[in-house]
Amino acid sequence: MELRPHAVRSLLAHLERLPGVGPRTAQRLAEHLLTIDPNELDAFAEVLAGLREAVRLCSECCLLTETDPCVVCEDPSRDRGTILVVEEPTTAWAVEATGDYRGLYHALLGHLSPLHGVGPDDLTIARLEERCRAGGVTEVILATDPTVEGETTALFIARRLQPLGVGISRPASGIPVGGEVASVDRVTLIEALKLRRQI
Amino acid sequence: MELRPHAVRSLLAHLERLPGVGPRTAQRLAEHLLTIDPNELDAFAEVLAGLREAVRLCSECCLLTETDPCVVCEDPSRDRGTILVVEEPTTAWAVEATGDYRGLYHALLGHLSPLHGVGPDDLTIARLEERCRAGGVTEVILATDPTVEGETTALFIARRLQPLGVGISRPASGIPVGGEVASVDRVTLIEALKLRRQI
Repeated sequence: MELRPHAVRSLLAHLERLPGVGPRTAQRLAEHLLTIDPNELDAFAEVLAGLREAVRLCSECCLLTETDPCVVCEDPSRDRGTILVVEEPTTAWAVEATGDYRGLYHALLGHLSPLHGVGPDDLTIARLEERCRAGGVTEVILATDPTVEGETTALFIARRLQPLGVGISRPASGIPVGGEVASVDRVTLIEALKLRRQI
Repeated sequence: MELRPHAVRSLLAHLERLPGVGPRTAQRLAEHLLTIDPNELDAFAEVLAGLREAVRLCSECCLLTETDPCVVCEDPSRDRGTILVVEEPTTAWAVEATGDYRGLYHALLGHLSPLHGVGPDDLTIARLEERCRAGGVTEVILATDPTVEGETTALFIARRLQPLGVGISRPASGIPVGGEVASVDRVTLIEALKLRRQI
């Protein structure tokens, strides 16, 4: 006999579609949501319902933003000569959290993936070219992920931007600070040794 | 500079309040919710918003239900002589999923916990007594958790029900089927050996 109310089964179905959430975790989350303060539950539902309307993509750099242009593109104190390119807008949050980057951003909204039918026109590469062409940009840092797709995407963009005469760079790959040399994968280790620096 | 839109920060705050969800998991979940089909997101929000209204406690057995009385209490084919007592209504779902139990349920909505100020009147013990007093009940299975609080609660209820002349039992503790003897904790192992059966 099915004891779980329809609303609970719907909730479980939605929870199980979340990344990394299996049936057991979904059950635990559902139990929690069934017992928390109803006002807290309502507030959570409201945030979800309003999420897409509150958040759009900056028409300049494609970061997630409430205002258009976004706070970075609008800030006169940012270094407008440097654009750091990320695959996903959320990756820019991690870069910004370092407190060490003062330039602009550009989110590609993905990476090239012929297997999944994602070509150059599905990304915001043309928009990036336009920004470089508009002048004032001296360096583009291609911070796509160090994966096969990320590398391919970086290489593709580098070729497209080369004629524009802007500097093109890519963050170093290497052993994570605080990590153990022994636990780093082979390819990263080779890369780290290749990029070794005199101390 | 704070790049994360206000709505995203609210979402992260709500996600981080979920059990077992830290900042990294919250970020991963938020990224997912920002990219899924907006209709799916709306449906999820609606389920959350309507959860508390759609789901109430059965006035008879305190299981979570859409109808009152619940499907179990209303089903004439259930064995009305047996009541299985659980701490949380959701625990009844696991028992029912075995497909092996045909009686009624009773959810206590917690366990006795003097330290947290939870006394007998904060649970549905009086309601359980009433159900037993109403007649027809021959056995009460106290399936509270095999924890200190669960055992205490079971013992307390057993004493309260004894004068009513109903049979009172408790599920066996022992080595989980499919588990390893070596990985079972000491107390469970002692219990399992004590309850050993001739084969």
